[in-house]
Amino acid sequence: MGKGGKPDGGDGFEEASRDGCEQENMAVWLLGVNTLKIQPFKLPNLGPRDVLIRLKAVGICGSDVHHFKNMRCADFVVKEPMVIGHECAGFVEEVGSEVKHLVPGDRVALEPGINCKRCELCKQGRYNLCPEMKFFGSPPTHGCLANQVVHPGDLCFKLPDNVSLEEGAMCEPLSVGVHACRRASVGPETNVLVMGAGPIGLVTLLAARAFEAPRIVVADVNDHCLSIAKALGAHEIVKVSTNIEEVAEEVAKIKEAMGTRVDVSFDCAGFNKTMATALSATGSGGKVCLVGMGQRELTLPLTSAAAREVDVIGIFRYKNTWPLCLELLRSSKVDVKPLITHRFGFSQKEVEKAFETSAGGGNAIKVMFNL
Amino acid sequence: MGKGGKPDGGDGFEEASRDGCEQENMAVWLLGVNTLKIQPFKLPNLGPRDVLIRLKAVGICGSDVHHFKNMRCADFVVKEPMVIGHECAGFVEEVGSEVKHLVPGDRVALEPGINCKRCELCKQGRYNLCPEMKFFGSPPTHGCLANQVVHPGDLCFKLPDNVSLEEGAMCEPLSVGVHACRRASVGPETNVLVMGAGPIGLVTLLAARAFEAPRIVVADVNDHCLSIAKALGAHEIVKVSTNIEEVAEEVAKIKEAMGTRVDVSFDCAGFNKTMATALSATGSGGKVCLVGMGQRELTLPLTSAAAREVDVIGIFRYKNTWPLCLELLRSSKVDVKPLITHRFGFSQKEVEKAFETSAGGGNAIKVMFNL
Amino acid sequence: MGKGGKPDGGDGFEEASRDGCEQENMAVWLLGVNTLKIQPFKLPNLGPRDVLIRLKAVGICGSDVHHFKNMRCADFVVKEPMVIGHECAGFVEEVGSEVKHLVPGDRVALEPGINCKRCELCKQGRYNLCPEMKFFGSPPTHGCLANQVVHPGDLCFKLPDNVSLEEGAMCEPLSVGVHACRRASVGPETNVLVMGAGPIGLVTLLAARAFEAPRIVVADVNDHCLSIAKALGAHEIVKVSTNIEEVAEEVAKIKEAMGTRVDVSFDCAGFNKTMATALSATGSGGKVCLVGMGQRELTLPLTSAAAREVDVIGIFRYKNTWPLCLELLRSSKVDVKPLITHRFGFSQKEVEKAFETSAGGGNAIKVMFNL
Amino acid sequence: MGKGGKPDGGDGFEEASRDGCEQENMAVWLLGVNTLKIQPFKLPNLGPRDVLIRLKAVGICGSDVHHFKNMRCADFVVKEPMVIGHECAGFVEEVGSEVKHLVPGDRVALEPGINCKRCELCKQGRYNLCPEMKFFGSPPTHGCLANQVVHPGDLCFKLPDNVSLEEGAMCEPLSVGVHACRRASVGPETNVLVMGAGPIGLVTLLAARAFEAPRIVVADVNDHCLSIAKALGAHEIVKVSTNIEEVAEEVAKIKEAMGTRVDVSFDCAGFNKTMATALSATGSGGKVCLVGMGQRELTLPLTSAAAREVDVIGIFRYKNTWPLCLELLRSSKVDVKPLITHRFGFSQKEVEKAFETSAGGGNAIKVMFNL
Repeated sequence: MGKGGKPDGGDGFEEASRDGCEQENMAVWLLGVNTLKIQPFKLPNLGPRDVLIRLKAVGICGSDVHHFKNMRCADFVVKEPMVIGHECAGFVEEVGSEVKHLVPGDRVALEPGINCKRCELCKQGRYNLCPEMKFFGSPPTHGCLANQVVHPGDLCFKLPDNVSLEEGAMCEPLSVGVHACRRASVGPETNVLVMGAGPIGLVTLLAARAFEAPRIVVADVNDHCLSIAKALGAHEIVKVSTNIEEVAEEVAKIKEAMGTRVDVSFDCAGFNKTMATALSATGSGGKVCLVGMGQRELTLPLTSAAAREVDVIGIFRYKNTWPLCLELLRSSKVDVKPLITHRFGFSQKEVEKAFETSAGGGNAIKVMFNL
Repeated sequence: MGKGGKPDGGDGFEEASRDGCEQENMAVWLLGVNTLKIQPFKLPNLGPRDVLIRLKAVGICGSDVHHFKNMRCADFVVKEPMVIGHECAGFVEEVGSEVKHLVPGDRVALEPGINCKRCELCKQGRYNLCPEMKFFGSPPTHGCLANQVVHPGDLCFKLPDNVSLEEGAMCEPLSVGVHACRRASVGPETNVLVMGAGPIGLVTLLAARAFEAPRIVVADVNDHCLSIAKALGAHEIVKVSTNIEEVAEEVAKIKEAMGTRVDVSFDCAGFNKTMATALSATGSGGKVCLVGMGQRELTLPLTSAAAREVDVIGIFRYKNTWPLCLELLRSSKVDVKPLITHRFGFSQKEVEKAFETSAGGGNAIKVMFNL
Repeated sequence: MGKGGKPDGGDGFEEASRDGCEQENMAVWLLGVNTLKIQPFKLPNLGPRDVLIRLKAVGICGSDVHHFKNMRCADFVVKEPMVIGHECAGFVEEVGSEVKHLVPGDRVALEPGINCKRCELCKQGRYNLCPEMKFFGSPPTHGCLANQVVHPGDLCFKLPDNVSLEEGAMCEPLSVGVHACRRASVGPETNVLVMGAGPIGLVTLLAARAFEAPRIVVADVNDHCLSIAKALGAHEIVKVSTNIEEVAEEVAKIKEAMGTRVDVSFDCAGFNKTMATALSATGSGGKVCLVGMGQRELTLPLTSAAAREVDVIGIFRYKNTWPLCLELLRSSKVDVKPLITHRFGFSQKEVEKAFETSAGGGNAIKVMFNL
Repeated sequence: MGKGGKPDGGDGFEEASRDGCEQENMAVWLLGVNTLKIQPFKLPNLGPRDVLIRLKAVGICGSDVHHFKNMRCADFVVKEPMVIGHECAGFVEEVGSEVKHLVPGDRVALEPGINCKRCELCKQGRYNLCPEMKFFGSPPTHGCLANQVVHPGDLCFKLPDNVSLEEGAMCEPLSVGVHACRRASVGPETNVLVMGAGPIGLVTLLAARAFEAPRIVVADVNDHCLSIAKALGAHEIVKVSTNIEEVAEEVAKIKEAMGTRVDVSFDCAGFNKTMATALSATGSGGKVCLVGMGQRELTLPLTSAAAREVDVIGIFRYKNTWPLCLELLRSSKVDVKPLITHRFGFSQKEVEKAFETSAGGGNAIKVMFNL
């Protein structure tokens, strides 16, 4: 969908009729390493099942920063100018003829990935693994840091009255935590270890709380992150190092902090050290979810984990999570607002500052644009 | 149970009454590296739920060879003289007062591990992970390479008429393959890759066939092993190397041999090379079971596997597998007889030759004692 | 899709270009109770993801007969003239611009239900429960007993070379058995009872064999059906009555025939008697699948079944079954050919005879049209 | 265990040494319809894995009342005098030589069923279905309404400091709700309907809340019960009738009260009316758990439920629930105290009043003895 847009134009009748006397649609284009530019972004025609959205809140994710800094993220390489961004919410401006659940004016959160709906994995309900996925801001598909986008109606979810547009945009990162908790079957008898208290570790903590994990220990190298984890409801926090020699003693500290068996660990960092710690700390028959992707290759004591039937569960994005996220926000079982540490407007200067803030370490958790 | 035996004596009334005018019970004791000796083995009293077994067929497993060669296997260290062996079948000679399903003269296969039945994992049905497991020939518990052993009746399974004692003993290795197939939910739509065509790879192949995997590709470095895999029903075999640089091209060969998606891979070797191959070859949303334990630490492209939600499933021994193994043997859905390549008698000289044969590489798959 | 067709015409350019000098497309229209007529059937435009199929084999199902006899089946009422039929296979004549996996001339089997792909159930992979399903020959959607139909490409599955068009059409009923076996997790340790040896009971038997059920007992009131079940591989058959008083003694006979615990029962009839028998015969912790729908309201000893945690699993059609069915046919693990007892051509007279044969009891199992 | 006790004597040394100068152990014996008598209850020897408990809190359950009123409950018939009661907690007075997790003075809740640990179902972890279960106060096994009982240590669970003995006794009924929620996989996206607001309906409500069901509707015929349900956290309550003709309109009311799809229904009553309502109200692909057992035979619209793949899940007691129940009580996620509406002492007169109160309808929810 977004992919159809072109920075340099297009002149179809549909666009003209829609944009006519209105302001031109502008978006943040990634043009090269460290180079973002607000430029016109031509939208595709509104199909019968599509919705035209005016974005109001767009968050910056670690993968956006990767694209910004390296013109790539994992195996995805930015080869042509691309609109960035994938965490968003906004107002419905127009709906296609077959869209029945939305009307102009509705506030919605957008699920960013458009799956093919026809491959084997889509038909089986594992659409997050669809090989033809088109995902906002993942090359070569344009993202959503723009005034407007066109998106399939079934991926636009109406916000409950008491959920803000910023919270709506936060459904995207929260979805990662929710999907991880679902895959690991977290429930009221699952004691949880979270390795890493960055944005993904924190949303995983929030999700694990919402899934009623009775006890959650969060470990990180950074005191500030740990203090946020504590404030967000971690039962215990454990300061760890990056020294691989210290796995055994840190596992002992984690077990002591847990006070009982670790059933499920979420490695939200994805390094040798964090995975080794998670594998050792998790009890027989438990699960370690690999959520973070710090290193591509990992050296791990996997054999001894396997000999205790500790399984390693891969986590990739999410599926069918927006309704649950919105319900968790509506019912206040999850509060994502403390994660939003910085806000920026939609100007060239603000955009640059926002990405530098997000990239810069410091104490930024979630950087949000208000458009 | 077996643990109670002592090489140097004991003199209880029960034993006397049982062994009285009979021959003394002899067993193969592991006394040191490369040192096995047939010596008397005193049995514990027969409890009300126990069965006295006269062993007739005992196989040698890779872990027995590890103990023989190194006085240890993984984390289990042989610190005191220990009777070796855990794959066995024999005749029932006597049953305890509460044993109702067996009578003297019955032929039975023995499940070698005695779990505590009271811990959380036992109660949940994951008894193979019981931390108090007492397992034949795993230090400090005595094994079953002996004339007689005493064993709980609920771990003694009557052989169907058309299943031989040797086949009964083969239930133990076959159980590993069965447990792996169960954990991976192999069925008529699961295309299977088996890395490694040693004894464990071959029983996994047999189990996958019994679970109706539509297509099974077996990869190994050894032509002889591959030819046995082919003879046992692998749809395709792929010769691979130990060169880690060749993963990508070997994965391509494996995929071509499969002709369709790989749903589940069983790494029955457990090396960097085999796991890397399995992880790369397995399709999105699939599973890699780590069955073999070649290396303790593995360096793996785990992140990209996780990003396709390829899970790593640990396999440790088995649970509740004997009834199924016996049914598979009875119905001829599995034929383990071709795996038995060498047979030895129960004399000091034969025992030494048997273990050297099993350890020696060559073309031995399963070495079996006939007592 | 089919719904768009009109018996009385239409005159779009697309149709014209396609049908130009060719013969007009004819179909079997259900016009009233016991009234079928071969009449012209105008096809919709071929969309970019659609395929035009020339039908060659179409089977008659019990639900078709219901429509024919009563102008309704369960809650589905035929209110307007409708093309009948939903079990079919044929040749690809034309493919839409985005269809890549098929070319004209390919032989294909058609999955008859078009789901919305956008509702919650579709997204979760339970698309058989989609509330907006459009299903061949289920009012108000037209069926496939026609020379040609237009169908979505992702519901057209290429036949392996050794699978005939008739076998392709049999994927539809076989899918019911496959879906039931999947939902019940039938495998090599699942002893199966099938109540009813009509077409659905027989395909369930075939599927259970393909899923490696070690022992299958089939019960029916009809000796002829039972003899077919035996010929198709039932391990034992049990003659039962329709007398509800005889449940207890028939359960005893079934248990004796099984010789071991019944793990899963499939009630392919759906009457008080058959369900009561299935519930009583199934062992603690087992499952009873309600596949047949003989009575709408059932009077059952459900409480005592629940007290043994015998679950009742509902079965509705199927999902993602065609690839597996084709693989089972290709590999000869399933042979559906013995089920095809009668064949008819595509003329007014033959159509009438075919439906009367299918409706007439007698010994017809599957009645097939060759077009 | 308890079964070994005899009202009329026994004189073993063990008992003598234990009871010597102490007061004789007394228990409430069920001697006939409506006839309970406090009489001496001789305990069996303390085995090495047993614990001697001094009971302090014992609740009355509906099944106890059934025994009291009819000398039977379901298929269990009281043929000989039997000590009644199975919901209990107390102090540890003595532990067997192999019991390591308890010491005299510990406060414990008792899981009342002793399974065989050796049958197939026990080994698979479904021990609640063990055919050789010996269950407190289920004939012919003696119960726990006594000063003291002997019980296996692995079924005695230490109470957290902030959990009272009465709350400990409430683990038994709460376990039914917990087991039902587990079998139905209730979680933060499971909207729950509870039919019936008696004791079992209310503990199911409490459990569903603890499992984070986002929305719970409770239906009952009794305003008082409904008001308690509301007070305990039901999101909506719906007054229903016993008139089977009103199912459709009550389902409409329930759906309106839910405001969204019903995912799981718990029928905690078990009548034609309640099951018909639950089956109709539950959404496609959902589950109906049959928890209550009001009628043995049920007449139900099961076919139309099956056609939406609404499964019927049987619930029998519980397994592995005590640790979770104690954690839920400790963390105040569940508060069972409001359920305890009446308390009685341990005298002949009080016992009679207590059972009449429990049987008498009125507003009694849980009647508790303080010993």
